Amino acid sequence: MIPTLAWTPEGVRFIDQTKLPLEESYVLATNYEQVADVIVTMVVRGAPAIGVSAAYGVALGTLQSTAKTASEFVPEFSRICERLASTRPTAVNLFWAIDRMKRVFAALLSAGATMKQVQDKLLAEAHAMYEEDIAACKAMGAFGGALLPEEGGVLTHCNAGALATCGYGTALGVIRSAVEQGKRIHVYADETRPFLQGARLTAWELMADGIPTTVICDNMAASLMHAGKIKAVVVGADRIAANGDFANKIGTYNVAILAKEHGIPFYCAAPWSTIDTATPNGDAIPIEERAAKEVTHHGGKQLTPHGVGICNPAFDVTPAKYVTAIITERGVLRAPYAESLKEMELIAG
Amino acid sequence: MIPTLAWTPEGVRFIDQTKLPLEESYVLATNYEQVADVIVTMVVRGAPAIGVSAAYGVALGTLQSTAKTASEFVPEFSRICERLASTRPTAVNLFWAIDRMKRVFAALLSAGATMKQVQDKLLAEAHAMYEEDIAACKAMGAFGGALLPEEGGVLTHCNAGALATCGYGTALGVIRSAVEQGKRIHVYADETRPFLQGARLTAWELMADGIPTTVICDNMAASLMHAGKIKAVVVGADRIAANGDFANKIGTYNVAILAKEHGIPFYCAAPWSTIDTATPNGDAIPIEERAAKEVTHHGGKQLTPHGVGICNPAFDVTPAKYVTAIITERGVLRAPYAESLKEMELIAG
Repeated sequence: MIPTLAWTPEGVRFIDQTKLPLEESYVLATNYEQVADVIVTMVVRGAPAIGVSAAYGVALGTLQSTAKTASEFVPEFSRICERLASTRPTAVNLFWAIDRMKRVFAALLSAGATMKQVQDKLLAEAHAMYEEDIAACKAMGAFGGALLPEEGGVLTHCNAGALATCGYGTALGVIRSAVEQGKRIHVYADETRPFLQGARLTAWELMADGIPTTVICDNMAASLMHAGKIKAVVVGADRIAANGDFANKIGTYNVAILAKEHGIPFYCAAPWSTIDTATPNGDAIPIEERAAKEVTHHGGKQLTPHGVGICNPAFDVTPAKYVTAIITERGVLRAPYAESLKEMELIAG
Repeated sequence: MIPTLAWTPEGVRFIDQTKLPLEESYVLATNYEQVADVIVTMVVRGAPAIGVSAAYGVALGTLQSTAKTASEFVPEFSRICERLASTRPTAVNLFWAIDRMKRVFAALLSAGATMKQVQDKLLAEAHAMYEEDIAACKAMGAFGGALLPEEGGVLTHCNAGALATCGYGTALGVIRSAVEQGKRIHVYADETRPFLQGARLTAWELMADGIPTTVICDNMAASLMHAGKIKAVVVGADRIAANGDFANKIGTYNVAILAKEHGIPFYCAAPWSTIDTATPNGDAIPIEERAAKEVTHHGGKQLTPHGVGICNPAFDVTPAKYVTAIITERGVLRAPYAESLKEMELIAG
């Protein structure tokens, strides 16, 4: 299993995803500020991985506090949570994880827990989220793997893999599971400009698992679909709204339209923590605009003319109408998603 | 006017499009082999520019021949034409230009022309093609400029500009003409992976003309369309088949589908020399597959894991059904293209 992030006695250790695939190096975040930094700089990325990273950040900040009592710790706890919540706006898992830590702290506070108990319980909660994340990936893999064809090309965008989670992956978990079921899948990985998560990360982790992978430029997808090389598309999600619209890495909406035009099933795989029923639809999802330099430069080298205008939205929204099914650890959801999401929420309640 | 290519007493001078936008340097091809090399290495690219470059290559090879008579020159002339025709397979303008030179030579040969006359006439023919190319761009600009909206965003893909022609451009000629007509156009330029013709060349030449330009990654187009920022799309073409299907830079087909899905007009601008009525439809257009390294590396730096599979088709085919109109120097064609192309051919005949 690729160690996306790991708790160590010294802090949280992250594989540096900005250096992959040519350099396998690690960053050790020894305080919560450093955890916030690795999220901002995308040393760690991927909605589920960001969520668990933030939870560990809260745990780390709590362990390092000099507060004598839980009550004394309240304002510091707020600052820690605020700092971690301010790192990136789109992936709802970040806020979900921090809210979960807040709820645990609130319960301990009202139960009169000691600071030591708060520290132990918050770290235990982060560990639980880590384990739950891997279990969720395995479960959605089992559900989703069954949907993929017996053989043929499957297109994915960005990296919704082991590196985007605590292990196994969401979209790539579905692919891994299909391969484990004996299906002969060839993965086409969109390189995913500007950060190249597909070319760098998806290619790297699938090659490590011996799954046949071809990297394509994002703009080659329609051509491959027309040629009949793509039998299904599976992607991850950063936030799924109550009506099934979902935000994911920029370019996902393009792929969804192309899949529809070619009659190819388009699946979204994400843990339940990605579902945000408080967001009514895709228009209400905040989209992060990142620095122009991600587009204008690569490897320190400038690509564009000086001073040209740049757009760099990190995500786009795919309307629910393009989604064949949403694959979660609780099962496979079908349209109309407003109803199927509500129903599954009640069942799993 | 940007000097894409120019005839000089020493040979053909090309602006080095692999070095733009950060370095404005020139390559002098002093024999026809070197002209072939600059086409292969994409120092010069763009279907109309390639055509005229090949014509100058034929003229240069003819001028440098030591043949005493036109008859003696025949086998050498064939070799020159073959070498230049073998450089790139998709843009039909290349073959059109070489065929035109062949026809001139054949006529001179049968008229008993001297070698000196052959040399003079073939150079004159190349010069004529150069001038005609600019005139065609201006004419299609005038026709096409009228189709663009009074104001708003216009998306283009790759570089179908002055740098892809002898000057003014096809798709960018349409945009230049609209701007000259007083329209307030903001250009969104797809960066156009892997060779980044949009990020490097389109941005550079439009900024030089003071036309507002924003570079986007190819995968951001759908998001901008959904946000209402794109009022029209205009692209060039490398070969237009008899039924109106056309090959253009990889990713054009993606953009065409996205435009259709958002109800945005999608225009193709190309000189008549790009129309290949001998090719019945898009499936019959040969698509160049280029080296994997264009995708795996940038600026000498490797992006992908060692040994990963790569696709690098340089072009894709956009079926005629996605094309709102084809803009040529003879006028604007509408579907059904099989008929409108035939009709225009007869009128202009």
